[in-house]
Amino acid sequence: MTRTATSAHPLDVALELEPVGDGTVSGRTTADYANMVGPFGGITAATMLSAALRHPERLGDPVSLTVNFAGPVADGPFTIDARPTRTNNSTQHWTIEMTQDGVVATTATAVFALRRDSWTSTEVTPPTAPAAESVEPTVGPEFIRWMRNYDMRFVDGGLTDIDGERGDSTTTLWIRDSPARALDFPGLTALCDSFYPRVFLRRGQMCPAGTVSLTIYFHVDADTLAGHGDDAVLATARAQHFGRSYFDQSAELWGRDGALLATSHQVMYFKV
Amino acid sequence: MTRTATSAHPLDVALELEPVGDGTVSGRTTADYANMVGPFGGITAATMLSAALRHPERLGDPVSLTVNFAGPVADGPFTIDARPTRTNNSTQHWTIEMTQDGVVATTATAVFALRRDSWTSTEVTPPTAPAAESVEPTVGPEFIRWMRNYDMRFVDGGLTDIDGERGDSTTTLWIRDSPARALDFPGLTALCDSFYPRVFLRRGQMCPAGTVSLTIYFHVDADTLAGHGDDAVLATARAQHFGRSYFDQSAELWGRDGALLATSHQVMYFKV
Repeated sequence: MTRTATSAHPLDVALELEPVGDGTVSGRTTADYANMVGPFGGITAATMLSAALRHPERLGDPVSLTVNFAGPVADGPFTIDARPTRTNNSTQHWTIEMTQDGVVATTATAVFALRRDSWTSTEVTPPTAPAAESVEPTVGPEFIRWMRNYDMRFVDGGLTDIDGERGDSTTTLWIRDSPARALDFPGLTALCDSFYPRVFLRRGQMCPAGTVSLTIYFHVDADTLAGHGDDAVLATARAQHFGRSYFDQSAELWGRDGALLATSHQVMYFKV
Repeated sequence: MTRTATSAHPLDVALELEPVGDGTVSGRTTADYANMVGPFGGITAATMLSAALRHPERLGDPVSLTVNFAGPVADGPFTIDARPTRTNNSTQHWTIEMTQDGVVATTATAVFALRRDSWTSTEVTPPTAPAAESVEPTVGPEFIRWMRNYDMRFVDGGLTDIDGERGDSTTTLWIRDSPARALDFPGLTALCDSFYPRVFLRRGQMCPAGTVSLTIYFHVDADTLAGHGDDAVLATARAQHFGRSYFDQSAELWGRDGALLATSHQVMYFKV
């Protein structure tokens, strides 16, 4: 199929969810976001968030999201049960569970809020990077299908740097959906999980690795995020500690104007 | 009551849980860990983790924990339902919910694992600090009862530094239970939430603030943690971004020998 300007974006196709009653929705994995085995974790996280975002009782915008990858997600249909566990005046707490054939594949919790104006300060600073337009895009390996849906321009710690040991696991890149798509919370969620495993960079080789838990803190509300449009995001990630088969990683996602859109943390299994 | 060497530690008293069947346990808040309103969030987080740790089906050690403070915890009894949502060969995923009178007060998810030997590297470095013994302990304000259960020795960003605006929200301190207690996963969990809100330090004043979601990544297994004994932990935290009534904070907890015990992240509500 030739994709035309009027066809739905592959991300929106992947996020299609059909209500099946009482806060439960059904969906299916799509080939566009396939990883080596099963779907890209970022699309699973974005789908979990979408189930809450589209729930009729939803209040406000997401402030935090934690997604636990409990087991492999098989290619095919899934069911998501999104339950508002507690709704307060300005905050709402969610417990979300994805099942396939009655078996839990993914769990999540989220906090939504009606955000109010307050004192504002960004204490961390964005990484130094040339303009996105001046950096060459990287084409991912053929067997990692989901990467073809992103325009990735590595500033530091790119795929070609997985070559010999290094002491620093930092990767910094400009990234946006390809084809371009206006950034929203599900799109931003998927970007938070788009970094390849930091252990590849430290060890200079690929190895078995997979995210077990991902947490995102959103620093923008829907209106501010809409103002970002489909510009590239400056994304940077590094690890803190590797040991006993797990490592953690922290990331920042910056808008072009120096606005911190989200901070994200995850813990990954690895074998090396 | 005079506490003697043979009486139970106040932390263990606060973590007492009684099985009431089918993975559900009951407990009650204790005056020792009272905050200004309700209990200290760290003790609630430690209690949620304990419900999974003591569950008869528990596999391995905690790797990650996310606790969502859905609403105020009232002084008095509570019920915790800890449910292993999926158990794999070497990992186990948990969904945990605390209720009071049938109303959800706190939710959590956790990942446990049988950890295996692997390549090890700590990429971040501990903050510079003099030995714990050479730093004066700080006595917290009388009205924050839970602080009396900790020996806190501030190296940077202490309570007396909440005095005029600053550009950096970093607090670094040596901290341990008081009376001393051998560190375990619940004890470490509580320490991860022991930092006062970063906004106090940036703004130089106290203001309404409370954690809405806390995530901890554990970098040690039970045996390694047991080796720490009751030594003080070098703890450091700083914020990334404040805006629209929420800010996030990241922390590291170090053992005396330069072992990274845990990294922790949280998002807090604030009003200023």
